[in-house]
Amino acid sequence: MTDTDLSLYLVTDRRFLRGRSLKDIVEKAIKGGVTIVQLREKDTPTGEFVELAKSLLCITQKHSVPLIINDRIDIAMAIGADGVHLGQSDMPYHIARQMLGYNHIIGLSVENMAELHQANDLDVDYLGISPVFKTTTKEDTAPAFGLEGLREACKKSIHRCVAIGGINLQNAQEILECGAKGLAVVSAIMDAKEPELAAQNFRKVLRNL
Amino acid sequence: MTDTDLSLYLVTDRRFLRGRSLKDIVEKAIKGGVTIVQLREKDTPTGEFVELAKSLLCITQKHSVPLIINDRIDIAMAIGADGVHLGQSDMPYHIARQMLGYNHIIGLSVENMAELHQANDLDVDYLGISPVFKTTTKEDTAPAFGLEGLREACKKSIHRCVAIGGINLQNAQEILECGAKGLAVVSAIMDAKEPELAAQNFRKVLRNL
Repeated sequence: MTDTDLSLYLVTDRRFLRGRSLKDIVEKAIKGGVTIVQLREKDTPTGEFVELAKSLLCITQKHSVPLIINDRIDIAMAIGADGVHLGQSDMPYHIARQMLGYNHIIGLSVENMAELHQANDLDVDYLGISPVFKTTTKEDTAPAFGLEGLREACKKSIHRCVAIGGINLQNAQEILECGAKGLAVVSAIMDAKEPELAAQNFRKVLRNL
Repeated sequence: MTDTDLSLYLVTDRRFLRGRSLKDIVEKAIKGGVTIVQLREKDTPTGEFVELAKSLLCITQKHSVPLIINDRIDIAMAIGADGVHLGQSDMPYHIARQMLGYNHIIGLSVENMAELHQANDLDVDYLGISPVFKTTTKEDTAPAFGLEGLREACKKSIHRCVAIGGINLQNAQEILECGAKGLAVVSAIMDAKEPELAAQNFRKVLRNL
């Protein structure tokens, strides 16, 4: 799974829908240049989560983009998603790998350097460095890494690092210059009036590197 | 799994702990005569859920009593639980069966006769008839079956039926006389000052039939 294109990593958040359809936003974002999609749901009943994930998988498969499920391995297995993304309070990594095997992507969030060093002993597919900046999208985040912290993290990690938390068009280039292999964005695309255009603008930054 | 003893089915609820340990209550309840345990958690992070389930599995295996996980197939698979219990908003039954295979118990809640008839087309291991009476333990329940409804349900179902919702020592005998093969109890044991004694008292009713 080392060839997965992590460069523009969309994390969903239905709080930004404002009556629009999640499928529609995701499809537009992919058309604009998103390379991987993570479905993140909190407090959604399992049955509804399965249906939502299935409907997104139709979109991501149509565009040959991987779909990652946040936390819930049962949902990922049920619909045949491409992988899962685990936080530190989610399923322990070893159990997740045992359940999913090596033909699935497993990403892991780290919130500090200690967790990052521990992750160097694991064969995860990528790390989420979280949060790089303070963000309003997620409430329970750890202190921000900042650009210096991110640079340090990318240097010390044996894994490819995706930066998440407060990433937008303005700071995208600095983030990449720190060594991050991917920009994980939530509101900068989900909350955009034109998600396709927003994704295209991120791609411009990615091309300029 | 048709030989699983469903007669005294404990469903956990940590709101009744009052500082006591869940493991301790469950072990006492099993010593008192509980024959099957369902771990029901809501809003517990996956990692914590796994740890809790593992620790309960130690107890249930020690006493050769099956441990069933409510809703979360990932947790059940991760710890090697004996099965899952699905509500109508949980993982669709067919997917759950595909994931778990036939060496796991799968129970399904039905909240009305239409769902009960649909379940006759499925090879579930048992049905939960929910709720038999109005209950304060669960807030989002459908209208109660009542004793007449339960009798009808047990007659029409091809599966063994476990009654849940408002079951206590006073109504246990009537419930069994309606044809239920199991008494599923939450507060009547979890909230009891002496869970072992509470379970023993249910066993007396079960013996008297």
